[in-house]
Amino acid sequence: MQCRKALEEASGDFDKAVVILRKRGAEVAAKKADRALGAGIVSSYIHSTGTVGSIIELYCETDFVSGNEEFKKLAYDIAMHIVASNPEFLKPEDITEETKNLAKEVFMKEVEGKPVAMKEKILEGKLQAYFGERVLLNQPFIKNPEMTVKALVDDAIQKFGEKIEIGRFVRFSIKR
Amino acid sequence: MQCRKALEEASGDFDKAVVILRKRGAEVAAKKADRALGAGIVSSYIHSTGTVGSIIELYCETDFVSGNEEFKKLAYDIAMHIVASNPEFLKPEDITEETKNLAKEVFMKEVEGKPVAMKEKILEGKLQAYFGERVLLNQPFIKNPEMTVKALVDDAIQKFGEKIEIGRFVRFSIKR
Repeated sequence: MQCRKALEEASGDFDKAVVILRKRGAEVAAKKADRALGAGIVSSYIHSTGTVGSIIELYCETDFVSGNEEFKKLAYDIAMHIVASNPEFLKPEDITEETKNLAKEVFMKEVEGKPVAMKEKILEGKLQAYFGERVLLNQPFIKNPEMTVKALVDDAIQKFGEKIEIGRFVRFSIKR
Repeated sequence: MQCRKALEEASGDFDKAVVILRKRGAEVAAKKADRALGAGIVSSYIHSTGTVGSIIELYCETDFVSGNEEFKKLAYDIAMHIVASNPEFLKPEDITEETKNLAKEVFMKEVEGKPVAMKEKILEGKLQAYFGERVLLNQPFIKNPEMTVKALVDDAIQKFGEKIEIGRFVRFSIKR
């Protein structure tokens, strides 16, 4: 239903319809932002080698959704994504000033000698690329790189009609 | 073999034999303390409710041991134990001074009015009980409360003939 409506709005253009659906997903997600996360599940993924694995919390509003098989699959998929893509932060706001300053120092050396007017811009670009790759919600989803993990969660919010949020996560890997 | 020898030493007394074996296990563990942990596995346990789970690293020396089914079972059992017993620290040394001082402050109020000579002793006892319960290696193993988690690991060290150590661990539980 949702799909067909978006496709009509986009006058038959499938790619446009996807954009419309995604935008709508983000809007639905924003609307539900204030609702309470009263339920959820803990899910884990261990790679077949047994030497790397992750565990995550995925929150929703009710046990009705947290008990749903598709919700469980979403949690499992995100855990698998974390094993594959090794994010350090959940969202950009989680990057501390200290970490930012440390990265800035490193990149500052790389832009030495560039014209002063461009320095700040290049630096900003480098920082965005560096941290963009390390933020879970911004990462391209491992099973469908066309969408980010945030879009994946937004899709689920639209589908289940409940606020859904990733809580804590960790990834362990055996050091050799 | 090991068991029979210990039983003979203990002149047939089974309980004594267990003590002898455990002591020997700790000795073997101490001897292997300097060897390198070059292998290991990541293991997780999610409770059937889906709302609480844990993930751990279990290190050993070689892939020969890390690939062993009994070693995998040990890792899984420890992950399950963590879900059940909710430890905060791996070993006593992991308790920070800050946490200790905070607990001391709380207990200080509880011993107010006690004779000065006894105060320090009661306080020490309270702190030991409080932190003893929160240290993974000191906790009674959930599947066999007769032994601590440390004794469980020491037994495995003796059995596999390799240094074995629990690495990082976390436990997630959905807050409602």
